[in-house]
Amino acid sequence: MKFTGQNVCISPKAVLGKNVRIGDNTIIYDHVEIDDDSVIANDCVIGEPTADYYSKSSYVNERTIIGKNALVRSHAIIYAGVSIGTHLETGHRVTIREKTIIGDNCKVGTLSDLQGHLEMGNYCRLHSNVHLCQLSKLGNFVFLYPYAVLANDKHPPSEKIQGPEIGDYTQVGVHAVIIGDVKIGANCVIGAHSTLTQEFEDHSLILGSPAKRVSDVSKLKSSKGESLYPWRARFSRDLPWQP
Amino acid sequence: MKFTGQNVCISPKAVLGKNVRIGDNTIIYDHVEIDDDSVIANDCVIGEPTADYYSKSSYVNERTIIGKNALVRSHAIIYAGVSIGTHLETGHRVTIREKTIIGDNCKVGTLSDLQGHLEMGNYCRLHSNVHLCQLSKLGNFVFLYPYAVLANDKHPPSEKIQGPEIGDYTQVGVHAVIIGDVKIGANCVIGAHSTLTQEFEDHSLILGSPAKRVSDVSKLKSSKGESLYPWRARFSRDLPWQP
Amino acid sequence: MKFTGQNVCISPKAVLGKNVRIGDNTIIYDHVEIDDDSVIANDCVIGEPTADYYSKSSYVNERTIIGKNALVRSHAIIYAGVSIGTHLETGHRVTIREKTIIGDNCKVGTLSDLQGHLEMGNYCRLHSNVHLCQLSKLGNFVFLYPYAVLANDKHPPSEKIQGPEIGDYTQVGVHAVIIGDVKIGANCVIGAHSTLTQEFEDHSLILGSPAKRVSDVSKLKSSKGESLYPWRARFSRDLPWQP
Repeated sequence: MKFTGQNVCISPKAVLGKNVRIGDNTIIYDHVEIDDDSVIANDCVIGEPTADYYSKSSYVNERTIIGKNALVRSHAIIYAGVSIGTHLETGHRVTIREKTIIGDNCKVGTLSDLQGHLEMGNYCRLHSNVHLCQLSKLGNFVFLYPYAVLANDKHPPSEKIQGPEIGDYTQVGVHAVIIGDVKIGANCVIGAHSTLTQEFEDHSLILGSPAKRVSDVSKLKSSKGESLYPWRARFSRDLPWQP
Repeated sequence: MKFTGQNVCISPKAVLGKNVRIGDNTIIYDHVEIDDDSVIANDCVIGEPTADYYSKSSYVNERTIIGKNALVRSHAIIYAGVSIGTHLETGHRVTIREKTIIGDNCKVGTLSDLQGHLEMGNYCRLHSNVHLCQLSKLGNFVFLYPYAVLANDKHPPSEKIQGPEIGDYTQVGVHAVIIGDVKIGANCVIGAHSTLTQEFEDHSLILGSPAKRVSDVSKLKSSKGESLYPWRARFSRDLPWQP
Repeated sequence: MKFTGQNVCISPKAVLGKNVRIGDNTIIYDHVEIDDDSVIANDCVIGEPTADYYSKSSYVNERTIIGKNALVRSHAIIYAGVSIGTHLETGHRVTIREKTIIGDNCKVGTLSDLQGHLEMGNYCRLHSNVHLCQLSKLGNFVFLYPYAVLANDKHPPSEKIQGPEIGDYTQVGVHAVIIGDVKIGANCVIGAHSTLTQEFEDHSLILGSPAKRVSDVSKLKSSKGESLYPWRARFSRDLPWQP
């Protein structure tokens, strides 16, 4: 009994592809384009106008693009001016602000908060309650775990801000914080509760607050003595190399 | 003027007990059973279908059970396949996913995120913004404070995950993180910002990141020299031993 | 196409000023007063009844006051008995509970959770996902960053609680935690991931878990050797001293 169409509001200026399903109480604003076979669940707001809407009578919503096969779960808010590739999957209550560019096959977990003006590659996964600041940039296959935060101001408040950049395959642990204009390499592992304010090279195991490079990630072994990282050889669920 | 019935949607396959009140804009899906004298406030989704709903035409919602005297505050999402005892009280915007089993007299605070496939005893209290991973297990009278996280993967990403188990009466401090297949004893006290990745015995005072057993909890005294833990002797609000 | 009036519900006992705009699906309860030129966006609940509503037939909603020029973004919940000055700006999904008193020109970011019975001066800014406990008190120009938490119980659970008090201009970093009946001075800087359970004097640079006073804030310099704090000389956006 989902998708009864109850209290749905779709702008005549929105464009919906084939077999797009929209949940009850959801609002789709002007210039939203949702591609084929996508699902937008209940109580969502898609194409949310930016702040100018409230003060400028000339305001026009920017294009908002959601690619094919998206599954956006209930209570999501996605702003006007967001561009998302194919196969997006979100949890509930995600907030994705303007000028966020997301690649294909990404997952954005429940309560995650994307502050806009940021970029994410393909196959990234944000678990629940991840916070990405403005001007941050994720490569491909970057996974962040609950309450991980990217922040863009080392000495707040500042007029100029600059966000972190995270390399391919890097794993960012629970409650880890990365602050400022720092570049974290590819294939790094960042431990829970770490605080990073400097750059780190590829393949670093990074722990502590303030964080230090403890070793190459290959030193991290399972109880059976097997190398755990890089992780690509041991994990493939929903990834291109899945058998 | 609450409960005007405006824009409420209740499946004919849901079963509501006596004196159940449902807030505006709330949706109750198939096979939800809500027992007598319960309140489900505005903008909730109860019996949210699981992922299979979107891809399998044969999908049928599992039973969702909410016991007597529940108070579920607004914007809650409770999935199909959840089972909750009597006297549940939630804050706002809680998310409780499928196969969560909750005992009697539990409180789940605003923004808390229960990932499903987990178990909680009686009289547990999750303050705001607590995250419980899949396969975690709480005993009875376990209290968790804001931004405490249970996580189930020590070396992510992994194909096999296994969650923590927390013993009766244990208190988990603000921003504490417990990761992996570890057993935390009964009557422990876990300090703010701790990171636990190993097991701890009953009555441990646990502090730090990585966390260590500092002493028996009985050593923790008030400024007047009185023992503070176990806490059962000094706190009884809404608990069975309340005078 | 915002503000179509679809599914809006406004109590006849609410008082709306001139040019107040209300978004779709929003509910305004009894005795709410919203002053001129304010915007309440979609899916909000304003004047949410407190717990007594559910058990006492004599319940009457307390006055809820929102000053001129407010912008409350979608999915906000503001309880009955809250009093807010002029020029409030919120993000999405904020929760502001009863007996919260907020001054003029404050910002409350997405997902922030104000537990009620608390006080905030003028020009305070809570970034995303800030948690303020009951009985906490902020001065003026206090800024808190994502996942900062004020908590009111050093040895939980306790029958008596007492919240922190934060002085003017103090900056509270990402994931910082301040617990209990402690007074933090004016013009302090609190680092990311710090844990504070004691008082600190004015102008302290406070770092670590447990936190220590590292130096006077004036010692914190930019890469060019300029003093960064007090910050008032170098940041003025939307503040009274903006040129």
